Amino acid sequence: MSLYHVLGAKQFNRLELEEIIRISEDMEEIEKNGGSNLYSNKVMTTLFFEPSTRTRLSFESAMCRLGGKIIGTENAAQFSSAIKGETIEDSIRVISNYCDVIVIRHTEIGAANRAADVATVPIINAGDGAGEHPTQALLDLYTIKKELGYVDGLSIAMVGDLTYGRTVHSLSYLLSYFNNIKIYYTAPENVQIPQYVKKFLEEKGVWYQEVDDLNSIASKIDVLYQTRIQKERFPTIEDYQLASGKYVVDKGLLDKLKSNSVILHPLPRAGEIEIEVDQDHRAGYFRQARNGLYVRMALLHKCFKS
Amino acid sequence: MSLYHVLGAKQFNRLELEEIIRISEDMEEIEKNGGSNLYSNKVMTTLFFEPSTRTRLSFESAMCRLGGKIIGTENAAQFSSAIKGETIEDSIRVISNYCDVIVIRHTEIGAANRAADVATVPIINAGDGAGEHPTQALLDLYTIKKELGYVDGLSIAMVGDLTYGRTVHSLSYLLSYFNNIKIYYTAPENVQIPQYVKKFLEEKGVWYQEVDDLNSIASKIDVLYQTRIQKERFPTIEDYQLASGKYVVDKGLLDKLKSNSVILHPLPRAGEIEIEVDQDHRAGYFRQARNGLYVRMALLHKCFKS
Amino acid sequence: MSLYHVLGAKQFNRLELEEIIRISEDMEEIEKNGGSNLYSNKVMTTLFFEPSTRTRLSFESAMCRLGGKIIGTENAAQFSSAIKGETIEDSIRVISNYCDVIVIRHTEIGAANRAADVATVPIINAGDGAGEHPTQALLDLYTIKKELGYVDGLSIAMVGDLTYGRTVHSLSYLLSYFNNIKIYYTAPENVQIPQYVKKFLEEKGVWYQEVDDLNSIASKIDVLYQTRIQKERFPTIEDYQLASGKYVVDKGLLDKLKSNSVILHPLPRAGEIEIEVDQDHRAGYFRQARNGLYVRMALLHKCFKS
Repeated sequence: MSLYHVLGAKQFNRLELEEIIRISEDMEEIEKNGGSNLYSNKVMTTLFFEPSTRTRLSFESAMCRLGGKIIGTENAAQFSSAIKGETIEDSIRVISNYCDVIVIRHTEIGAANRAADVATVPIINAGDGAGEHPTQALLDLYTIKKELGYVDGLSIAMVGDLTYGRTVHSLSYLLSYFNNIKIYYTAPENVQIPQYVKKFLEEKGVWYQEVDDLNSIASKIDVLYQTRIQKERFPTIEDYQLASGKYVVDKGLLDKLKSNSVILHPLPRAGEIEIEVDQDHRAGYFRQARNGLYVRMALLHKCFKS
Repeated sequence: MSLYHVLGAKQFNRLELEEIIRISEDMEEIEKNGGSNLYSNKVMTTLFFEPSTRTRLSFESAMCRLGGKIIGTENAAQFSSAIKGETIEDSIRVISNYCDVIVIRHTEIGAANRAADVATVPIINAGDGAGEHPTQALLDLYTIKKELGYVDGLSIAMVGDLTYGRTVHSLSYLLSYFNNIKIYYTAPENVQIPQYVKKFLEEKGVWYQEVDDLNSIASKIDVLYQTRIQKERFPTIEDYQLASGKYVVDKGLLDKLKSNSVILHPLPRAGEIEIEVDQDHRAGYFRQARNGLYVRMALLHKCFKS
Repeated sequence: MSLYHVLGAKQFNRLELEEIIRISEDMEEIEKNGGSNLYSNKVMTTLFFEPSTRTRLSFESAMCRLGGKIIGTENAAQFSSAIKGETIEDSIRVISNYCDVIVIRHTEIGAANRAADVATVPIINAGDGAGEHPTQALLDLYTIKKELGYVDGLSIAMVGDLTYGRTVHSLSYLLSYFNNIKIYYTAPENVQIPQYVKKFLEEKGVWYQEVDDLNSIASKIDVLYQTRIQKERFPTIEDYQLASGKYVVDKGLLDKLKSNSVILHPLPRAGEIEIEVDQDHRAGYFRQARNGLYVRMALLHKCFKS
């Protein structure tokens, strides 16, 4: 019996993605009816070497709604054996004994894969440095499906920090499994979409375009995927100031967007979507956050039944 | 269906306070019989932007004794989206999706109210800066009722840091709903009871007096409510040294207190009640800490059934 | 009815140790069959004044596998009332109200005993400074029994930091309850086994020897108990460099060990056992970590039924 790990967006195929969407829909029903007690004898470890309260709480809530139990650490890097020089592999070998699934967040690219190589329980990657954040991409996909009713044929603009923003990378990979996708990448000059993402899309035959003027494509897109310009990702404050504030979603932009489009954001935001936008029916980012719960319930379910 | 929030001591009326006392009594019975499993499908988030292990554990224990599940963070300020520039409002909008009640502790006055404005689940204020700490005041009230058998007609001395000590403010507000209350405020010169509290009592017609000599009123009071002089609340070490040590509860003071009075303290203490006092039957502060469990169970119950 | 505390290795007798081994075996069965729900109405507090993710997660997992609930703090020293000047005694008096057992880790020798003096619930010592770590010693003992099939008559080498490594002290005490034990202590010059441990063994009539050359005894021992040289325990970097690296378990040493011996380590390791050793059937340290779960389940069980 092989373990079901969630390590990166490239591990899936279209059938699997559709299955995850279907299970997430079931989980949404279950959650709305008060949750389940199906996995009351399961234990999840949240092993966060880098703090991320939002993602951690989302996973922990998903586990609670399935009846399960949680152990974990908010700050593994500072508090754990890591400071005593232990390798990720040794940590995972030990912690595998204590639980039925490990959700790991780490600062290093590839950390989740290294964990999966030695784990005796399923590993879920909750973000590995500038690498991937596959559960975020899956909830983005679920949200798009739910908001628009379709994925095939959509046009999406990914906006903001496209270099360091791993969620746009993971989402681009996932969308490559669907047909007739158009991706517009709109980023400040110093945080453009990386070459290796473009190369991946070209190999898959996915249409994409790099666009400097967001207004020029606003009327063409079904999904506006905004991301935060992260101060900590920039070498200097000047680089940060160059990047931030260039693409802000406000009422002016709302007027240009289709009425049946949706605005997404992995959150937290820091000024790149104006508060005034929240009341618009196309503001989907808080619904998107809620969907994270259902998708993570679905993924935990897949881990436990594998 | 409106949400039941616990935001400040002024939100209650006498009937509600009596109801909370009654439910707390029920919860005490339930807890002593091994707890309940009534809320096994509920999830509580403890969102502490400021550490307070004691208060957090009290809430979490209350949730456990009701059968519920807990997610949360010990140190939201350091670890959460807050450092990425997220507003309280956005944090609450997201976290509302993950649970059935949010217990929030924050450094800013009014934070809990801001949270309640956008939350889709009940908010419980576990302390907002120098603002309020209503659940502490409710457990103080419950303790007074349980220890003395009555509230109407009591005389109470509140002692120590009355400027920064938010629990004495909240308790003063609560006592204003009862009849023939006498409050003595006894504080070092630089941490007297604030004008706005006195004004509130005057409007409510509550009798109060500021008294410098604790010994002079010791024989008149039913409740001695001692508080800690907090070093971190004072601008300079000189101010702190002036304030601390002026009013210490010791055997000498015990001799002056009525035999059917009670000594309370929100804890932790740091020298303002001598260890030798602990063995006296009037030392009610550890029983008071235990009562926090029952009152918080009662408040959670009210949140869930609203 | 008296409380069952786990404070130090010297509190046991041989009958009790055999009982703990027997219950741990039962717990291993229970855990492998999906755990129990026996203690679903119990609450455990993990009160860690010093971080130790591994030990904490092991206890928390044990509690989960018994169906119980967990509250606690990862870093009590930084976050709790401790920084407000509260004594351990006051903290324990309060927290006793919130749970059915307290697992305490502290930097000061004797902290767990002080806690037990005032607690109204059982206390389990999860490490008190350079003092004891009795649950580690108990899981070591359980592992030895399980790996070898016997304890009486064994020869063991304890290697590494024998001054600051409290687990070797606690294990030495436990082994003194068995017959015909031979202990070899092998340590770098500045971290030899302390005089008071040797004195204890002499009083108990336990055979021991201090040996500088690990290779010379490798063929004589049934258990090789390796420990980490902890950088933080040494006054200077020179002292650390002298000590570390002197006794490394590698393939060369494997060739000299008996085929039916076992290599143990309390983990985490930091270079003192080579990765290449992991595949050998005598590498027992990850199985040992797993056994911690069963032993801690057994100890919690004893606390709850006492």
